[in-house]
Amino acid sequence: MSWTIERHSLKELDLNNEESLFFLGNGYIGVRGNFEEAYGRAVPTVRGTYLNAFHDVIDIPYGEKLFAFPDTQQKMLNVIDSQTIHIYLGKEKEHFSIQEGEVLEYARKLHLDQGKTDRTITWKSPLGKEVEIHFERVVSFVHRELFLIQVTIIPMNFSDVITIVSTVDGEVENHVDPTDPRVGAGHAKLLHVQEADTFEGNTFLKSKTERSELEMACLSYHKGLDGKLVDIEKEADDQRLVYTYEAQADEGQSLAFSKWNIYVDDLRHNGDLRQKALRVKGQLDTMDADQLKEAQEKYLHQFWKHSDVEVQGDDALQEGIRFNLYHLLQSAGRDKFSNISAKGLSGEGYEGHYFWDTEIYMIPVFLMTAPELAKQLLIYRHSILDRARERAKEMGHEKGALFPWRTINGGECSSYFPAGTAQYHISADIAYSYIQYYHVTGDDDFLKDYGAEVLLETARLWTDMGHFRDDGSFAIDNVTGPDEYTCVVNNNYYTNAMAKYNLEWAYLIYEKMKDWKEDESDTIFARLDFQAGEAEHFKQAAEAMYLPYDDKLQINAQDDSFLNKAVWDFENTPKEYYPLLLNYHPLTLYRYQVCKQADTVLAHFLVEDYSDDDTIRQTYDYYEAITTHDSSLSSCVYSMMAAKLGNMEKAYHYFKETARLDLDNTHGNTKDGLHMANMGGTWMAIVFGFAGLRIKEDGLHLSPQLPEQWDSYAFHLHDHGSAIKVQVSREGVELEVVEGDGVELFVMEEKIEIVPGQTRKLEL
Amino acid sequence: MSWTIERHSLKELDLNNEESLFFLGNGYIGVRGNFEEAYGRAVPTVRGTYLNAFHDVIDIPYGEKLFAFPDTQQKMLNVIDSQTIHIYLGKEKEHFSIQEGEVLEYARKLHLDQGKTDRTITWKSPLGKEVEIHFERVVSFVHRELFLIQVTIIPMNFSDVITIVSTVDGEVENHVDPTDPRVGAGHAKLLHVQEADTFEGNTFLKSKTERSELEMACLSYHKGLDGKLVDIEKEADDQRLVYTYEAQADEGQSLAFSKWNIYVDDLRHNGDLRQKALRVKGQLDTMDADQLKEAQEKYLHQFWKHSDVEVQGDDALQEGIRFNLYHLLQSAGRDKFSNISAKGLSGEGYEGHYFWDTEIYMIPVFLMTAPELAKQLLIYRHSILDRARERAKEMGHEKGALFPWRTINGGECSSYFPAGTAQYHISADIAYSYIQYYHVTGDDDFLKDYGAEVLLETARLWTDMGHFRDDGSFAIDNVTGPDEYTCVVNNNYYTNAMAKYNLEWAYLIYEKMKDWKEDESDTIFARLDFQAGEAEHFKQAAEAMYLPYDDKLQINAQDDSFLNKAVWDFENTPKEYYPLLLNYHPLTLYRYQVCKQADTVLAHFLVEDYSDDDTIRQTYDYYEAITTHDSSLSSCVYSMMAAKLGNMEKAYHYFKETARLDLDNTHGNTKDGLHMANMGGTWMAIVFGFAGLRIKEDGLHLSPQLPEQWDSYAFHLHDHGSAIKVQVSREGVELEVVEGDGVELFVMEEKIEIVPGQTRKLEL
Repeated sequence: MSWTIERHSLKELDLNNEESLFFLGNGYIGVRGNFEEAYGRAVPTVRGTYLNAFHDVIDIPYGEKLFAFPDTQQKMLNVIDSQTIHIYLGKEKEHFSIQEGEVLEYARKLHLDQGKTDRTITWKSPLGKEVEIHFERVVSFVHRELFLIQVTIIPMNFSDVITIVSTVDGEVENHVDPTDPRVGAGHAKLLHVQEADTFEGNTFLKSKTERSELEMACLSYHKGLDGKLVDIEKEADDQRLVYTYEAQADEGQSLAFSKWNIYVDDLRHNGDLRQKALRVKGQLDTMDADQLKEAQEKYLHQFWKHSDVEVQGDDALQEGIRFNLYHLLQSAGRDKFSNISAKGLSGEGYEGHYFWDTEIYMIPVFLMTAPELAKQLLIYRHSILDRARERAKEMGHEKGALFPWRTINGGECSSYFPAGTAQYHISADIAYSYIQYYHVTGDDDFLKDYGAEVLLETARLWTDMGHFRDDGSFAIDNVTGPDEYTCVVNNNYYTNAMAKYNLEWAYLIYEKMKDWKEDESDTIFARLDFQAGEAEHFKQAAEAMYLPYDDKLQINAQDDSFLNKAVWDFENTPKEYYPLLLNYHPLTLYRYQVCKQADTVLAHFLVEDYSDDDTIRQTYDYYEAITTHDSSLSSCVYSMMAAKLGNMEKAYHYFKETARLDLDNTHGNTKDGLHMANMGGTWMAIVFGFAGLRIKEDGLHLSPQLPEQWDSYAFHLHDHGSAIKVQVSREGVELEVVEGDGVELFVMEEKIEIVPGQTRKLEL
Repeated sequence: MSWTIERHSLKELDLNNEESLFFLGNGYIGVRGNFEEAYGRAVPTVRGTYLNAFHDVIDIPYGEKLFAFPDTQQKMLNVIDSQTIHIYLGKEKEHFSIQEGEVLEYARKLHLDQGKTDRTITWKSPLGKEVEIHFERVVSFVHRELFLIQVTIIPMNFSDVITIVSTVDGEVENHVDPTDPRVGAGHAKLLHVQEADTFEGNTFLKSKTERSELEMACLSYHKGLDGKLVDIEKEADDQRLVYTYEAQADEGQSLAFSKWNIYVDDLRHNGDLRQKALRVKGQLDTMDADQLKEAQEKYLHQFWKHSDVEVQGDDALQEGIRFNLYHLLQSAGRDKFSNISAKGLSGEGYEGHYFWDTEIYMIPVFLMTAPELAKQLLIYRHSILDRARERAKEMGHEKGALFPWRTINGGECSSYFPAGTAQYHISADIAYSYIQYYHVTGDDDFLKDYGAEVLLETARLWTDMGHFRDDGSFAIDNVTGPDEYTCVVNNNYYTNAMAKYNLEWAYLIYEKMKDWKEDESDTIFARLDFQAGEAEHFKQAAEAMYLPYDDKLQINAQDDSFLNKAVWDFENTPKEYYPLLLNYHPLTLYRYQVCKQADTVLAHFLVEDYSDDDTIRQTYDYYEAITTHDSSLSSCVYSMMAAKLGNMEKAYHYFKETARLDLDNTHGNTKDGLHMANMGGTWMAIVFGFAGLRIKEDGLHLSPQLPEQWDSYAFHLHDHGSAIKVQVSREGVELEVVEGDGVELFVMEEKIEIVPGQTRKLEL
C-alpha cells in the first residue's frame, strides 16, 4: 500500500488537485494528471504539459516604474499537448466521458516504485455498452524525451467497432486567473505552431515562442494499431493533428495500443528538432513498452535504494513521505538550463520560477540521496552567474554577483522588490549550498570548475553591500530576510549570519586555492580580476559581522527594529483572515511583530554555531509565538528546530503539517501545483530534525531521536561516495553501508566508522 | 518690465517649455500656451486643455498585486480643444505657419497684471505676402467657464481674401511617453464625443469619459466675423467642428475677431450641459471683449494688492517671484471637487494628481494673501474625508482617516506604496494646514463645519497607527517621511513631530468643543462615534511622542535607523547621475544616508518648538551635507531654515534655486508642467524665510532680515480679516494696514499693534 497512491473520487475539487498530485515528470518533461478524454466542459481543468525551463518572455507592467525594475519576466509555457485520446464505442460512436453514461468502477494510482500512473474505469454508455478502460502513463527517467501512454480497452458486453481519436495539439495556452495573485495573469497564448506534418504514421508538431524565440517539438506515433488507421487530419488551422483509428473489438477481448510522444526543444537539442526527435525514436524502437517500464522500475529501484525513508507506526505519514520524495525526483532539472521550480513540473503556479527553495529545502535531500542531481542543480546556478554579475552592477554594486530572487533564465523576474530582489540572502543561500556540497563530496574538481567562482563572487557582493560601522561591526542594511511579513530592514539576522558563512568560506576556499596548481587558481583570479586584498576583506567582514542580539530577551533579534514594533493582535484576528497576506496590506503587516515563516529560527538551523543553545531555545520560543506559518516553508523548520531542542512532541506536530500538505490539500491550492520546498522539508524534518543530521566540515553529525508515535524509522545518507542506511528504533541506531567504502561520521558527537558488510549498532 | 514675461524664441525646446510657462488658467480651466495654428508636424507638442479634477479612471497594472494595492487611479484628461485657428492668405490660400515662409518679427508676452497672453508675429508667406497677426488670450477669473481668443490680422503689402478656419476638436488624447516614469504611460484616448451640433453660429461638442462617466462640453462661437461664414462642417467622424470664414482684407487695415469658448462639466454644472453653457453665454453677451479684459485686469489688481512681493535689487528674481505667484493663482481649485495638482493646470505631469504639496507649499501662500482660496482648498480635503476613512479601514486601521498620497477624487492613486501610501504624514500635513488656517482666521464656523472632524479623524489615525513602548514613549513604525530616498522606516522624525502636533491640536480643539453649543459638538461626536476617552488618548500619545535624537551628533535623527547607515559616496557620483532616482534602484538609495529633499529640516520649520536652536542648527548642517535636492520641494525649505539660522548667504543661494526654476527650466522638465510646490516655496522663502514669518496660536511672528543683494523687499499678510503690507529695507521694517481693522503681531518677539492709516516703522 505504501508504494501506491490510490484515489477513487470524481468530484471536481479532487480532480483538480489530482491533476497536480498525479503529475508525471522526469526533470525535463512534466505532464499533469489530466484525463486523456478530458472531463467535459462543466469541470474546470488546467491541462498542462511543461518542459523545464522552456519559457517565453513577457513584459512586467508597473503603475510607477523605477530604475532597475525588471522590464520583463520569464514564464514557463504550457507546451504541445499529447495527452488527448478520445474513445468512441460502436457504430453509434458513443463518446466515452465521465460526464455521460455511468461510471461503474473507477480507480487511479500513482506507483511510486514503478514510476507510472494508471487509471482504470468501468463505464456504461448511455446505450448500455459496458467497457473497461485502462490508461497507463510513463514519463521516462531513462529516456528523458519520452512520454508514453498505454491504453487497454475491454468491451464487457458487446462486440463492435471502437473508434480511437488521438490528437497532438499545438493550440495550447497557459492558465490564467486574474483573481489570484499567485497564479499567472494575462499572456495566455505565447506558443505558436510553426510546423505540422504527418509522415509514415508519425505526427510532428513544432512550435515557437513569441519573444524568447525558443522552439520545441513533439513527435508522436502509435503502436498496436497497425492497419487500423483511418486518417490523420490537420485541424484548427493546422495547429492540431488528429489520428483516427477504427478497430473491431470483441466482447471480453483486450484492445491495446500505446501512444509514444517524444518532446524535444532547442535548449537541449541543438539543430534540427525533427532529426533530433527521430533519432530518439530510433533509440526507442529497440524496445517495447514493457521493456521501457522495466527500465523505469529499475531506475526507481535504484533511487529508492538510496533515498527511501521507512517509518513504522504511521501509514499515512509513510505515504506522504514517499510521495513527496517521488515528486522531488520528478521535478529536479538535470541540465544547466533548468532547476526545480516552486511547483516543480506539476503546475503553473509562480510561473515555473526557481527560488531559494531549491538550495535551502531541496538540495539537502538530493545531496544525501542522489548527489549527482544536487550537482546538476548547482551547475545551473553557475550557468546564470554572468546574469547575477550584471544584476549586481545594475543594483549599484561595484563587484560581485546578486542572484535573482525568482528566475528561469537568470534574469530577475520579481516585480515586487521588497519581497523579491531585496531578499539578497538568496546569494548566500546558493553559496551555502555549494559549501555543503563540498563538505559532503570533497569534490575538488567541482570547486575548481564552478564552486570557487560562485563563492568569491557572492562574497564580493556582501563586502560591497555591507559597511563597517564606527563600533567596528560589519552591518548589512536594507534587505529582506526569509520572513516576507517584515521587509527591507537593517541587519536581518538570517541574512547577516548567512553572509558571514559565505564570507568565511570564500576566505577559506581562497586560502585553499593557494595549494592548487598555479594555472588553476590564476585562471579564476584573472577572470574575476580578483585582488589578494579582497580575501582579507572577506575575513574581516566575516569576523566583524554584526549578529543582532537582544540583551533583555536574550534572543537574536530578527533585525535592528523588529523587537521595537508592536506585537500583532493574534487574539482578535479571525481564522479566515489567514494567510494574512491575502487580507492585509504589506504596510500593515510590516508594522507588527508577526512572521510569515521561520527566519531567525531557520538561521539557527543552517548555521547553528553562531549562537549558543540557550539563545537558540529562547529565540525559538519567542518567534514561534508570533509565526503564522502562512508560508509552506515554515513548518518543517520549526519541526527540525523543535527536535534539536528536544521537544519531540512539537517536532512531530510540525512534521505532520508538512508530510501530507499536498496529499490532503491543507493549503487549499494544490491544484496550482505541488509545494516542492515543503516536500523537501518533509524529508529534512526526519533526517535533519528527528535524526539530527548536520553537515559540517569534519563530516556528517547525527543525534537521532525517535518520535514516540513511531516504532522506528530508517533513511539513507551519502558521504564522499558512500551510501549508508540509518535505522532508528527503540533499541537504538543501526548504521550500515549500502554502497561504497564506508564512512566516518559522528553520532551524538562520537566519531564512528562504518565499514561495508558490518552493521553498526549504537544505543541512544 | 517686471509685470510682463516676454519671449522671442522659436526653437523647439523653448516652444515646448513655453507651452507650460504661457499656460492660462483660472483654477477651473487650464489651457497650455500652444500656438493657434500649431507648429507643423516636425515640432513635438503637448496640446492641452484641462478642467481641474475632470478625470477618467484607469487600471493600475502590477506584476505582483498585493492586498489593498489600488486597482485603479484617476487621470486628469485633456479635453476638447478650442485653441485651433488656421489662417490662409489670398486666393492661393497660403497657410500661415512658422514652418513655412519667413518670420520677420515675433514676440509673445504673459501679462501678469492683466491676466492674459498675447503673441504678435510678422510673417512673410512663400509667395511674398506680408502679414502681422496678433493673438490675445484670456482665461477669465471672473467668468470661470470662459476661454477667449482675440485675433487681429493686418495685411502689410496686399489686399486679398483671407480664409479663417477655426475648429473645436473633440478628437483629443492625453500625452504619453513610455520612456519617462514621471509622464503618463498608456491610456491616451479616454474621452469620447457624445454630441456634436451646430446652431445659430454656435458649435456645441459634448464628450464623456470611459469609466468615470463624467461629461464635459464646449460651446464655441465667434464675434466680429458676421456675414463672413462660409460653412460649419463636421469632420473626423463628427468629432470635430470646423468653421470656415472668408473675409476681404485690405492692406494696412485690421481684420479682427474673437473666439469665445465656454467650458462646462457635470462636476460643477449639474443638469443639461448645453443649457448650462447657453446660460453662461447669455451672461457673457452683456459685455464685449474689452469689458471682459477690464474685469480680468480689475481682478488681478485686487489680487496683486494683497499678494504682490516687491524686490528692489534684482529684476530677474522679481520676475520669477511674480511669475510664480501668478501661476499659483491660475492653478488653485476653487470648489470642493478640485485642488492644486503637482503641475497645476499647466500640463499632464503626475496625471493631474493632488499631493501634500498643496498643504505644505501652497496653502501658506494663499492663507497670507487670499485666505478664501486657502479655505476652498481645505474644503476639498473635507470633501474626500469619507474616502480617507475607507482607506484607513482598508489599511487595517480600526478608526481614523488616512488621506491618499496622490488623488483627484479621493481614491488613492499611488501604485508604488513605499513612496506613496507609506507617506502617512500627508494626513498630519492636512491637519496642520487646518490648524494654521484657524490660527490666522479664527474662523469658528469653519472649524465646526469642516475642521473639527478632520482633526479628530486624523488624530485617530495616529493613535491607531502608533503604539506605546515599554519605556513609555509613543512610537510610529513603518512609514515614509518626505525624503523619498529613505522609505518605510520607524519613527521618522518628520512624521512623528507632525503627528504630535496633529494629536495636540485635536485634543485642544476637543477641549474647545466643550464650549460650543451642545448640539454643535454632539452632532460631530455622534457622527464620528467619538468617545471621551479618545481625546485623552490623543493627549497622552502627543505627550509621549518619541522624537528621535542622536546624543553623539546632537541632532534629530531622520528615523530610527538612518544614522546607522553608510553615507552615500557623493565624491564618486558623477554629476550626470543626478537626480539619483533615475540612475539607482530604490534599494540602493534606501541603503545609504542620502536625502532627496528636506525631511527633518522641514519638520524643524513647521513645528520648530519641538527642538532647541542648537539641535536645529546641528541638524541642518548634518542633513544639508547629504541632501541632493533632487526634489523641487527641497531648496525653498533649506532657504527658509538657513534664514532662521542667520545664514543669509545660504538662504539667498537656495532662494535663487527656487525663484526661476521653471522660467529657466533648471530641472529640465518644465515642458511637462510647472513645479507648483516650488512656486509656493519661492514666496515662502521670502516671507517665512527672509522675513521669518511663523503662524502661531498667539498670532503672526516676524523676524525680518534683508539679503545683502537687495535694497529692500515688501510683501503682504492677512490676519483675522485684515491685510497688511510689510516692507523690509536697510532702514528697518515698515508695516501698514492695506485693508481691515488692523492687527497685532510680533516683530522680533515684540508685540506690535498696527492700525489703519498709520505706517509703523521699526528698526531691525
